[in-house]
Amino acid sequence: MSASRKIAFIGLGIMGSPMAANLVKAGHHVTGYNLQQPAIDALVAAGGHGATSIAEAVADAEVVITMVPADPHVLQVVLGEGGVLENVKAGTLVIDMSSITPQTSIKVAAAAKEKGVRTLDAPVSGGEAGAVEAVLSIMVGGDDAADFAEAKPIFDALGTTVVHVGPAGAGQTVKAANQLIVAVNIQVLAEAVVFLENAGVDLAAALDVLGGGLAGSTVLNRKKGNMLNREFAPGFRIDLHHKDMGIVTDAARAVGAALPVGAVVAQLVASARANGDGSLDHSALLRGVERLSGRTVA
Amino acid sequence: MSASRKIAFIGLGIMGSPMAANLVKAGHHVTGYNLQQPAIDALVAAGGHGATSIAEAVADAEVVITMVPADPHVLQVVLGEGGVLENVKAGTLVIDMSSITPQTSIKVAAAAKEKGVRTLDAPVSGGEAGAVEAVLSIMVGGDDAADFAEAKPIFDALGTTVVHVGPAGAGQTVKAANQLIVAVNIQVLAEAVVFLENAGVDLAAALDVLGGGLAGSTVLNRKKGNMLNREFAPGFRIDLHHKDMGIVTDAARAVGAALPVGAVVAQLVASARANGDGSLDHSALLRGVERLSGRTVA
Amino acid sequence: MSASRKIAFIGLGIMGSPMAANLVKAGHHVTGYNLQQPAIDALVAAGGHGATSIAEAVADAEVVITMVPADPHVLQVVLGEGGVLENVKAGTLVIDMSSITPQTSIKVAAAAKEKGVRTLDAPVSGGEAGAVEAVLSIMVGGDDAADFAEAKPIFDALGTTVVHVGPAGAGQTVKAANQLIVAVNIQVLAEAVVFLENAGVDLAAALDVLGGGLAGSTVLNRKKGNMLNREFAPGFRIDLHHKDMGIVTDAARAVGAALPVGAVVAQLVASARANGDGSLDHSALLRGVERLSGRTVA
Amino acid sequence: MSASRKIAFIGLGIMGSPMAANLVKAGHHVTGYNLQQPAIDALVAAGGHGATSIAEAVADAEVVITMVPADPHVLQVVLGEGGVLENVKAGTLVIDMSSITPQTSIKVAAAAKEKGVRTLDAPVSGGEAGAVEAVLSIMVGGDDAADFAEAKPIFDALGTTVVHVGPAGAGQTVKAANQLIVAVNIQVLAEAVVFLENAGVDLAAALDVLGGGLAGSTVLNRKKGNMLNREFAPGFRIDLHHKDMGIVTDAARAVGAALPVGAVVAQLVASARANGDGSLDHSALLRGVERLSGRTVA
Repeated sequence: MSASRKIAFIGLGIMGSPMAANLVKAGHHVTGYNLQQPAIDALVAAGGHGATSIAEAVADAEVVITMVPADPHVLQVVLGEGGVLENVKAGTLVIDMSSITPQTSIKVAAAAKEKGVRTLDAPVSGGEAGAVEAVLSIMVGGDDAADFAEAKPIFDALGTTVVHVGPAGAGQTVKAANQLIVAVNIQVLAEAVVFLENAGVDLAAALDVLGGGLAGSTVLNRKKGNMLNREFAPGFRIDLHHKDMGIVTDAARAVGAALPVGAVVAQLVASARANGDGSLDHSALLRGVERLSGRTVA
Repeated sequence: MSASRKIAFIGLGIMGSPMAANLVKAGHHVTGYNLQQPAIDALVAAGGHGATSIAEAVADAEVVITMVPADPHVLQVVLGEGGVLENVKAGTLVIDMSSITPQTSIKVAAAAKEKGVRTLDAPVSGGEAGAVEAVLSIMVGGDDAADFAEAKPIFDALGTTVVHVGPAGAGQTVKAANQLIVAVNIQVLAEAVVFLENAGVDLAAALDVLGGGLAGSTVLNRKKGNMLNREFAPGFRIDLHHKDMGIVTDAARAVGAALPVGAVVAQLVASARANGDGSLDHSALLRGVERLSGRTVA
Repeated sequence: MSASRKIAFIGLGIMGSPMAANLVKAGHHVTGYNLQQPAIDALVAAGGHGATSIAEAVADAEVVITMVPADPHVLQVVLGEGGVLENVKAGTLVIDMSSITPQTSIKVAAAAKEKGVRTLDAPVSGGEAGAVEAVLSIMVGGDDAADFAEAKPIFDALGTTVVHVGPAGAGQTVKAANQLIVAVNIQVLAEAVVFLENAGVDLAAALDVLGGGLAGSTVLNRKKGNMLNREFAPGFRIDLHHKDMGIVTDAARAVGAALPVGAVVAQLVASARANGDGSLDHSALLRGVERLSGRTVA
Repeated sequence: MSASRKIAFIGLGIMGSPMAANLVKAGHHVTGYNLQQPAIDALVAAGGHGATSIAEAVADAEVVITMVPADPHVLQVVLGEGGVLENVKAGTLVIDMSSITPQTSIKVAAAAKEKGVRTLDAPVSGGEAGAVEAVLSIMVGGDDAADFAEAKPIFDALGTTVVHVGPAGAGQTVKAANQLIVAVNIQVLAEAVVFLENAGVDLAAALDVLGGGLAGSTVLNRKKGNMLNREFAPGFRIDLHHKDMGIVTDAARAVGAALPVGAVVAQLVASARANGDGSLDHSALLRGVERLSGRTVA
């Protein structure tokens, strides 16, 4: 068992709450801060501690974890007035586990470095269930391998696949690639579904045999039920995937990588959102293929 | 153990030879015919029988299996002069395991029906290794469930996933969908690889963590080695996948199913071929993304 | 004025009827044949002659013109039983002005050559109005420049732009390229229209200024009215453009030319058709962009 | 003739210099400012006046025109320290003729409004030649029609097509649409060229006949020479068009407009740049289609 650490946890939302609770379970001293009080109360009930400000939460922390919705929140929470960098001691390790752009992670890392603060970007994959069950995949960027080594026991309390993938921003880059692959794998599965149905094939049987061969994928396994039953409760919302497709197309543009298929799928995700499907699970890309194929979509 | 059947096997190529041998092992009486004699000799050496014509091969057969390269070969072997339909008894079950267009399978089925001959289309997935090890996925189309039931023990000697997916042509339709999904999954993996490399990420580490989450796929597992090492010995050749993308785009067009992403990938597969990569493994779609991204490709 | 020729005209439809009449006006001896009698009667009323069979129509002809809907009709009318090749004298010049695949034109040319019959493929652009007013563009393929020279005075009675673009099939190839460019130019105009409207711009003013610069095109000039008024009476029907996109994607595939954008637009044309817009003018591709953008399309 | 106005002109580059000179010719009192002195000297030699700072240039101006490369320059020149807004009198009309994002134009307009300064965004199309010959197309956005009316005589000294297209930002939106249409029209022309060449057609003849029909466009007229001769000296550089494709895809995303084809072409423009063609004319998109089609590109 790893040594207990003093951890400040900023952002106790759907993902952050169970993650903070898992850190408590693993024996860490966790002080949480959140804009809404009930999430703090829940952490305290689970054995953690509460703070009334970021300043208070991070005052004694050895490690700070942030888990917030998007780039502006990270900028405000970490770099903003009353934020993490203003209040931590030099040498603290700040781990941002939000899913944001690589550029923002790099900007945060540079600003922290100037104050002698160490950083990792460590976005996760696996959703709420993965957070609750502590089976997240965690892709970690950071300039110093020693920082990753120090954080590894903490990550191990949160997930099962934990990999240091490169320098600052690299975690976000891999997360972006993850979202790219997932969106495209869903889209082509949707195209296959409409094709198979239009051709009069037994879809359930077809998906079984497809899943057993080279066409098999985690997307097919996990989303075929949604597609067969036209049941699109999220899961992962199209609105969020739309944000992520913006991140990956911008990031790829910045490094000169061609995304001929990714760019088309980004349009189709945007189209799904424009058609009112933003709050459905991303498997609802099927509805877009149905619309293109002239079907009436309920 | 199932009853021994009298089987004629037409087409003893890279796939057909090990399949015929597996039928012999399973206790069937197999008579092979092939344009080149050595493949017939090999079947005889494995305990089968040889014939000098299709007529001779199918004369006493209860079941005829054909395994040939493309639509014209099926049309000639089954419908042509001296072909299967001219020479089999009424009631024989003719199983075409070639990968061809659904339309041709439907045409063959109709012509056979006129002569009182029963048919199944049963293309396979799994490649040469799958044929040798008898672990193929077999997607079966046929109008009569009883025909599938009769053929099931024979298929079980060849593969591990055997599914009746619909009426005549449906097997080919599912195979087409399989090839669609595989090509797109490879293409987006290639886009992700170039993006990750350009962004300075540790690619091997990134692919490990990607494989563990929702972005995971059989394509990622089996092809990441090719991509990491730029090692593109086939495997499944781009030339063949180009043929298959033609089948699926035509078939989708015929049934009014939209393939916005499939159509783009069909162009990229064609482009790979035009760039001289036709005899490489389909994972060499990576080379096309590299070209689009301005890299020099050896 | 050019010398009067004995011309057989097969196919007196929406295009063929006014074309045949224009040839009469130009002083030629025109004998028409059509499946429906009224069109023949109209030609006779206009000063032409009627025939009750292809055989009778072409018996004394120096030049035969065919103008029929699609490949199968050309194959039947020219190569079929009782068709043109069976009934013309050696040396006759057979000009097919239908819009079909280059491959079929090449096949017809080869079959004709075996019988000593000369051919040109000469599809047209300009629609019914262009046919009536004799201002068609005519793109001519043929292996022998002398044949084109001989036909030139005839073409000049039908159109204003008449160009010999290459060997047999080349006329059809250029027609295919024409349809490719037109479809894509319409599609991008439609994307611009929805973008401009969503952004709150005065669309009519914007199209005026766009038309005056490098973004100007014949498509913009002729179709902006359709788009501004959502008035999509044909004009040129999406169903026909769908057929043509099939021709150009197949032809490009056959010669190894990449159509990354053309392939996407082919899908969007197919989608328009699948959504019930097949009988609208091709400017109705706008409706597809509106659907993708989440608008309700009446 | 219109009344003489006191105009400050900020940004005397390739476009700004001839535009400022044309305003002098039209009888206006023009004071120029530029980072490099020689351009100021040239304006003085042409009958204008020079300033050593933005503050000095705009001190007495009734109208301020800015013509700079990109968003950051506009933000700095207009909103920055020592910039236009700090130094103009309330009521001044500030016209930004740069090509930037609609969002930045809206931001500038809002900031100006707070200080009682009026603004127009008025990007141009027509290139250096259009600027020199005063035949630019000018697409003007602005909330107040009276501001456009006041500026109209000034615009008329610079261009021949001058249209008020909507509120603040609308000029930039139309410019973005212009660049979208131009890029796609070039791309499909390039696809047609490679297709026609591969098919063995006489390209020059084919482009002639295509230009005469519905496929005709200003792009075809002006760029066919570049394509026929593989002569790609700019003209308008791919690097700049790459910037513009970023603007239009972002702007369309912001207003929920689908760009399925525009997004693909944005990738192809980026690919051209990644392949080292950034300083060539945008007609060099042809080289990308050639690469995709397996040709060696010099």
